[in-house]
Amino acid sequence: MPHIQTPDNIPGIRGLMNFRPDAAQALNALAQALLVEASPLTRGERELIASFVSSLNHCTFCMTSHGAIAAHLPGNDYALVHAVWEDYQKADISDKMKALLHIAGKVQQSGKAVSEADIAAARSLGASDLEIHDTVLIAAAFCMFNRYVDGLGATTPDDPAFYDLIGAQRAQEGYLTKSVLMK
Amino acid sequence: MPHIQTPDNIPGIRGLMNFRPDAAQALNALAQALLVEASPLTRGERELIASFVSSLNHCTFCMTSHGAIAAHLPGNDYALVHAVWEDYQKADISDKMKALLHIAGKVQQSGKAVSEADIAAARSLGASDLEIHDTVLIAAAFCMFNRYVDGLGATTPDDPAFYDLIGAQRAQEGYLTKSVLMK
Repeated sequence: MPHIQTPDNIPGIRGLMNFRPDAAQALNALAQALLVEASPLTRGERELIASFVSSLNHCTFCMTSHGAIAAHLPGNDYALVHAVWEDYQKADISDKMKALLHIAGKVQQSGKAVSEADIAAARSLGASDLEIHDTVLIAAAFCMFNRYVDGLGATTPDDPAFYDLIGAQRAQEGYLTKSVLMK
Repeated sequence: MPHIQTPDNIPGIRGLMNFRPDAAQALNALAQALLVEASPLTRGERELIASFVSSLNHCTFCMTSHGAIAAHLPGNDYALVHAVWEDYQKADISDKMKALLHIAGKVQQSGKAVSEADIAAARSLGASDLEIHDTVLIAAAFCMFNRYVDGLGATTPDDPAFYDLIGAQRAQEGYLTKSVLMK
């Protein structure tokens, strides 16, 4: 049960959002801008960053839901998502993507943990300023979303089918539509 | 110097925002929703939460700029802001506000650090569900803004007059106008 009384039994962040629709609009617009709109990073890569940072923050709801979204996007599957959670250095992703996940992991600790050397390493593997920017901002944003979800004790389902359902929805629709659970 | 090449020399988050205007729009809309639009917490209280969390994250730019914004809002001054940075338990704020800052401090550590007892303590001092929600989300959002600013190495001025200038501007205008430095 969440720490606050939400207006329905929708689990995870959407239950909190239904409690505060005006904040929800801004949060969903941000998720859409960062994870769906134009970026040199693919949607699949951005969802992997989101799920990876959520795993470092031990936010089961965000880690699993964004992992499911990632798995439903081109080029990814659940095996790849699980490999990133377990040890991204051994996952079947590019060296540039590994360098970006390294930066995302630093951001999860603290903005100040990101060093010039981390940036230089990513750049030497082909990362552009825009890719570095988007990685840092997505990682930072999930340090917010994770804290919002767990700080208010949002309901976190156990059933993988739940996450697969919302993963399929968000992969197809992005973040500006109602939850499939309310349709 | 920031880790990425920004298009101008505007310090702090606005320099990063000028690099990525579409993300900036979503970030400013979120700041406006959380810190300016309707809430049972006053604008001054919300800016104190923002500045306090930024101080815990050692984000000098956000701590000082939102401290200045707080100081320019009714009921606050710089002495109160400094007292909250130093030891909010001794600051001249309500017991309810102290309980909310305690929750904000837990959110800064991790969403999972917020306990039922923390929520119950705030509620026993008169905090509503909406006040608890807004406190958690503002604290979470500054864990994002702080990481964005420091993770990309945004320029952090030393001059208190710089922060006083943007503090006065944001207290008056909110977050949807251009920086006073670009006007």
